[in-house]
Amino acid sequence: MNVTVRGRTRHYRTVTFDAKNNFVLLIEQRLLPHEFKIVAAKNFHETAAAIRDMIVRGAGAIGATAAFGLLQGALAFRGKDLKEFSTHLEKVYQTLDAARPTAVDPVNAMNQVRTQMRFGLGVEERQLLAFAAAHEFANEDVRHCEAIGRHGAKLIRNGAKILTHCNAGWLAFVDVGTATAPMYAAQSQGKKFHVFCDETRPRSQGATLTAWELAQQKISHQIIADNAAGHLMQRGEIDLVIVGSDRTLGRTGEVANKIGTYTKAVLAKRHGIPFYVAIPLSTIDWRLKSGFNIPIEERHESEVLGAWGIESSPKSKVQSSKSAKRAYIRVANPASGACNPGFDVTPPELITGIITPVGIFKPKELWKRRRELGFAD
Amino acid sequence: MNVTVRGRTRHYRTVTFDAKNNFVLLIEQRLLPHEFKIVAAKNFHETAAAIRDMIVRGAGAIGATAAFGLLQGALAFRGKDLKEFSTHLEKVYQTLDAARPTAVDPVNAMNQVRTQMRFGLGVEERQLLAFAAAHEFANEDVRHCEAIGRHGAKLIRNGAKILTHCNAGWLAFVDVGTATAPMYAAQSQGKKFHVFCDETRPRSQGATLTAWELAQQKISHQIIADNAAGHLMQRGEIDLVIVGSDRTLGRTGEVANKIGTYTKAVLAKRHGIPFYVAIPLSTIDWRLKSGFNIPIEERHESEVLGAWGIESSPKSKVQSSKSAKRAYIRVANPASGACNPGFDVTPPELITGIITPVGIFKPKELWKRRRELGFAD
Repeated sequence: MNVTVRGRTRHYRTVTFDAKNNFVLLIEQRLLPHEFKIVAAKNFHETAAAIRDMIVRGAGAIGATAAFGLLQGALAFRGKDLKEFSTHLEKVYQTLDAARPTAVDPVNAMNQVRTQMRFGLGVEERQLLAFAAAHEFANEDVRHCEAIGRHGAKLIRNGAKILTHCNAGWLAFVDVGTATAPMYAAQSQGKKFHVFCDETRPRSQGATLTAWELAQQKISHQIIADNAAGHLMQRGEIDLVIVGSDRTLGRTGEVANKIGTYTKAVLAKRHGIPFYVAIPLSTIDWRLKSGFNIPIEERHESEVLGAWGIESSPKSKVQSSKSAKRAYIRVANPASGACNPGFDVTPPELITGIITPVGIFKPKELWKRRRELGFAD
Repeated sequence: MNVTVRGRTRHYRTVTFDAKNNFVLLIEQRLLPHEFKIVAAKNFHETAAAIRDMIVRGAGAIGATAAFGLLQGALAFRGKDLKEFSTHLEKVYQTLDAARPTAVDPVNAMNQVRTQMRFGLGVEERQLLAFAAAHEFANEDVRHCEAIGRHGAKLIRNGAKILTHCNAGWLAFVDVGTATAPMYAAQSQGKKFHVFCDETRPRSQGATLTAWELAQQKISHQIIADNAAGHLMQRGEIDLVIVGSDRTLGRTGEVANKIGTYTKAVLAKRHGIPFYVAIPLSTIDWRLKSGFNIPIEERHESEVLGAWGIESSPKSKVQSSKSAKRAYIRVANPASGACNPGFDVTPPELITGIITPVGIFKPKELWKRRRELGFAD
């Protein structure tokens, strides 16, 4: 999407490949929203480190980063021996896989590249096929998000007031995003609307990343405390909720997403407000039979007990600045601990529809229509 | 309640009167939870400033502070002339009233003291009556909270897991508190239970004040992000919700309280979890006919866009320290604004019961039983 840095507007993706230098270029997401910076991972070790250290995060974005990392590793090979090349490639694969061992996206992305490479007869041909396959993976991620946007934009009427939670925006994908895709599409259709971004404690991705995205696209928005959505719904201030999902169960229609998503779905149901979940097909889990079996990560208590930001005065308008120092403050009582579940599970009866690249489905329809949705036995 | 400072445990109230020096002694609440300190307001001007600057906050606590401030002003008068005394007292009253003009508690408290003073024939007798009346006001606040505790403790079974929101603890009253009163009473009865404190963004009173209170009383507790309660309820981790209230409508049973209370009530209803509101009788509004008419304060956006705390390392256990510097950090995207409603209104159908000093009532019963509840036409 477009990003304006020091008055200059340019189109960026979260991850791109610099073929001239064999670098993977990434938006350094840990500096956002206070600083926008592109960093170059100069070899596949650095690309793995970027995934591990969360310079890049989000399902589609780390998938594409791993695909480009595998390409980068393949291109770094100097030689003609196919067996040596395969050994080298396996090392690259393992290194990238180990960077975020619980994530499925890097593995899926690299498998897709590797499968294409097998058609090559020699090293050089396999390198060219890797080049094509990695770029294809990234472009497909973008096309899927754009398709989500086309389907979802129909839900946004002119003047709508939309609530979103956490960040399922373009920063989590290669471009466009999922929960944000309908907003960007509606904007390009000339519709006017307003977005409330849940702060999304404890990690505040709504206040930092989603708000930054919307501000860059000049979409009218306000950040709200996670506590405020119920009140706004009561007063008729919210017409539509769109969130993303980390994992959606194809068999049940249950949706696992950032902690607090379930609460918003319960509130939306009470107020008769449509609640939509936007997902790429890759996040549908066709295996699990119950949302209760989704492991809920218990994260470090320091996230709840404090906050990260830049030192500032509460009354002055803060400007983005390279010199601003990011700091952690302890907010909570020093002698108290915290309980910090990272995700929750929303049952299908609270979900109006699942927005996918191939259309909008009732959550209970997913299994019945699994062929359309890419399910393979 | 008991507070342990540098290994010494002592009983404190939020506000007391130092008769020897004619000082009002207050817990400096703005330093909590990072530092515990008693400050002396040396004359009624300083007492008014303490109310205005929120050294003391909470309905009962500012009521008692104003009562003691009026006493302090009365005792500072040197002379015998009743007319001069009255003029002086009026000035004291106006000064204290102006400190927090929208709050009703200081006015109610001072009126109670002034009414008693009228029975005195001379200045000295009136000063003595003020002394008695101000102390009576503070003691009655404590007795009411203790009575809430006695009634509410019955709701807490051994092993219970309780959720509370914001701070309706002893720091908001003279002692004991309202939402916390049943917990303190149950503890004194030897019951074991666990409390989840909602962080309560944007001002984090749960993470700071309630967690500090519970830690001081050695009650098992954990702070949670406001987003986490729904998930915990889903997993059967919460048995009971107890919150306070800023204003409860006697005619409808609607409860205005800190933003986010309504959301917790909606979640509790969905999960069949009892939801109780603990209140002193003084916060019942017998006049308003609809919760929709309760003005909802829109607070400064800086509260949502950032956080206050002490600089720290996320991984180290923080110790309370006099030297720790309180700082504000900007968390949110610099170019984004916020919407920050301070309160919300919970309808009676979501409330299991209202715990008052005279018993537990269904919210819809309040009007029918208004005589018991102190309503005067």
